[in-house]
Amino acid sequence: MNAAANVTAKVIDGRAFADRLGTRIAVAARDFAARAGRAPGLAVVLVGTDPASEVYVRSKGRMARKLGMESFEHVLPETASQDQLMALVARLNADAAVDGILVQLPLPKGLDSLAVIEAIDPAKDVDGLHPINAGYLASGLPGLVSCTPYGCLMLLRDSLGSLAGLDAIVVGRSILVGKPMAQLLLAENCTVTMAHSRTQDLPGKIGRADIVVAAVGAPEMIRGDWIKLGATVIDVGTSRVEQGGKMRLVGDVDFAGASLRARAITPVPGGVGPMTIMTLMHNTLIAAHRRAGMPVPNLS
Amino acid sequence: MNAAANVTAKVIDGRAFADRLGTRIAVAARDFAARAGRAPGLAVVLVGTDPASEVYVRSKGRMARKLGMESFEHVLPETASQDQLMALVARLNADAAVDGILVQLPLPKGLDSLAVIEAIDPAKDVDGLHPINAGYLASGLPGLVSCTPYGCLMLLRDSLGSLAGLDAIVVGRSILVGKPMAQLLLAENCTVTMAHSRTQDLPGKIGRADIVVAAVGAPEMIRGDWIKLGATVIDVGTSRVEQGGKMRLVGDVDFAGASLRARAITPVPGGVGPMTIMTLMHNTLIAAHRRAGMPVPNLS
Ligand SMILES: NC(=O)c1ccc[n+]([C@@H]2O[C@H](COP(=O)([O-])OP(=O)(O)OC[C@H]3O[C@@H](n4cnc5c(N)ncnc54)[C@H](OP(=O)(O)O)[C@@H]3O)[C@@H](O)[C@H]2O)c1
Ligand SMILES: NC(=O)c1ccc[n+]([C@@H]2O[C@H](COP(=O)([O-])OP(=O)(O)OC[C@H]3O[C@@H](n4cnc5c(N)ncnc54)[C@H](OP(=O)(O)O)[C@@H]3O)[C@@H](O)[C@H]2O)c1
Repeated sequence: MNAAANVTAKVIDGRAFADRLGTRIAVAARDFAARAGRAPGLAVVLVGTDPASEVYVRSKGRMARKLGMESFEHVLPETASQDQLMALVARLNADAAVDGILVQLPLPKGLDSLAVIEAIDPAKDVDGLHPINAGYLASGLPGLVSCTPYGCLMLLRDSLGSLAGLDAIVVGRSILVGKPMAQLLLAENCTVTMAHSRTQDLPGKIGRADIVVAAVGAPEMIRGDWIKLGATVIDVGTSRVEQGGKMRLVGDVDFAGASLRARAITPVPGGVGPMTIMTLMHNTLIAAHRRAGMPVPNLS
Repeated sequence: MNAAANVTAKVIDGRAFADRLGTRIAVAARDFAARAGRAPGLAVVLVGTDPASEVYVRSKGRMARKLGMESFEHVLPETASQDQLMALVARLNADAAVDGILVQLPLPKGLDSLAVIEAIDPAKDVDGLHPINAGYLASGLPGLVSCTPYGCLMLLRDSLGSLAGLDAIVVGRSILVGKPMAQLLLAENCTVTMAHSRTQDLPGKIGRADIVVAAVGAPEMIRGDWIKLGATVIDVGTSRVEQGGKMRLVGDVDFAGASLRARAITPVPGGVGPMTIMTLMHNTLIAAHRRAGMPVPNLS
């Protein structure tokens, strides 16, 4: 449509970035083990038999071991009670070998996730979901930050260098992604707009943004021609859609259209996704160092 | 300048609103006392002899008593140690008659405010400054909200009814005012832009906002002709400036100019200021009810 729109965006390779980060994490984990006399430890708790959750839990454990961390996997039956789950969390809180605790969500119906999250020692809350960690983030204090937005920030910093003074819009305001993302961008001195389902004139607002982070879960709802020329686009959304009889994973952004206007954009898959698991490993490494009273290595 | 700019804004009378709220708080406090066998209690801690802080502390105590609450005033010498202050906070945490604890800031040099704030029982943190309360706010969970932004929100709701779908800009991002204000507006389903000293084209951004909350502390930095026609303006800023040999209190917004474009605007003084102390009383009432396991009365 736009005659000037013959830019072709750089595709931000989240997988390659995550691989490079993983290499640095592995070195730091080995170094930690040499000094602390034990490897950083990540405990993952699964309740029930949800197949997607099983896959996630398994791949987190595998990645931890691959990077030289110790992985503790705890699987409770679908019928586990709140008390059983709370007792397990209490045991992991008390276990000196455990630096990170991740309870895979969603929990089976009947279990109170918030109570479980609030029971996790905030210093071991590597998912960054405990309200005190949300509060530390909002207050500019050191805590643990939710993995997905933290991964997005790393990609943005890598792509843009300084973000200061840029106009950013975050579409979606979940506790897991949108809200911490907005806080992280604010801390980088972006001017941040928080948009959601009640937002008026989303196209106009996106059209003014230098940075667009989309975390909605609505396939290709953000049209390519909404994007400001030269913007950087981070697409967190993942939706499975049928196309020509095959299932395909798509993001919140019309990738092809946006690529004609953006300067850089993450693909789906291969953008934000691979970063999420790696920032979990990064958080575990951070938690291990803090708990051992060692300075946190700067891996960026 | 603008030919259509012959609107005259309604002046939002924060003092009158605060007085009406105070009347309702007094009734609720009496009711609480009748049922709980004790009045809601507010403890205010002052360290040192800063004259402005002394005035604030005294007026808070006086207002609490006026509304039928018990007021505990603790004054430590300028030379008080961190340990002494922490011990006092611990005592107030343990005191069943104390529902709210406010440590007047700033503390004398050498004392660690964050450590003190984090030591306050979050359920008694009526200033809403504990990181867990910031986290509860960000997570949409019930906690205690910083008084000034909470007062601004009450004025906005009273003036506008529903805020849903409106475009709001918050200028300033302090932990005390700007950041919680943005979270409150987001929870009301505004689309919220967080602006600050690094923001580019502030006039343009303000010109698109239906709601402007200014919390900077720069006298009249926001010019009247930046304001969108029909916007609602909440001016938190207070600066003392000399004018014709006299000291005058002015806000962040050019009140006269903005009044020609806004539909409603708070004056300085008499707008946000009187609300801040009243929301402190409101928070104390809320804390008292929650601590006693009683439903929190809806005073709006
Ligand atoms: N790649 C990864 O590693 C990764 C990690 C986490 C999540 N994700 C994906 O990211 C997406 C978001 O996840 P989430 O957990 O944040 O989702 P969520 O909790 O469902 O939140 C979705 C947000 O999108 C907003 N929204 C819905 N419709 C909208 C519209 N038409 N316009 C603007 N905003 C709209 C909602 O607004 P309201 O608040 O007004 O309802 C809500 O805030 C999902 O696709 C998820 O699968 C990917
Ligand atoms: N009426 C009341 O009851 C009440 C209560 C509390 C506060 N106040 C008043 O409200 C004002 C703000 O208080 P505060 O505690 O939030 O102050 P603060 O901690 O000093 O924060 C000021 C904020 O303004 C931003 N800022 C500075 N210059 C700016 C510029 N040129 N353009 C845009 N933003 C700019 C700063 O941005 P950076 O973060 O980039 O530095 C900072 O975020 C003060 O005047 C204070 O006296 C009144």
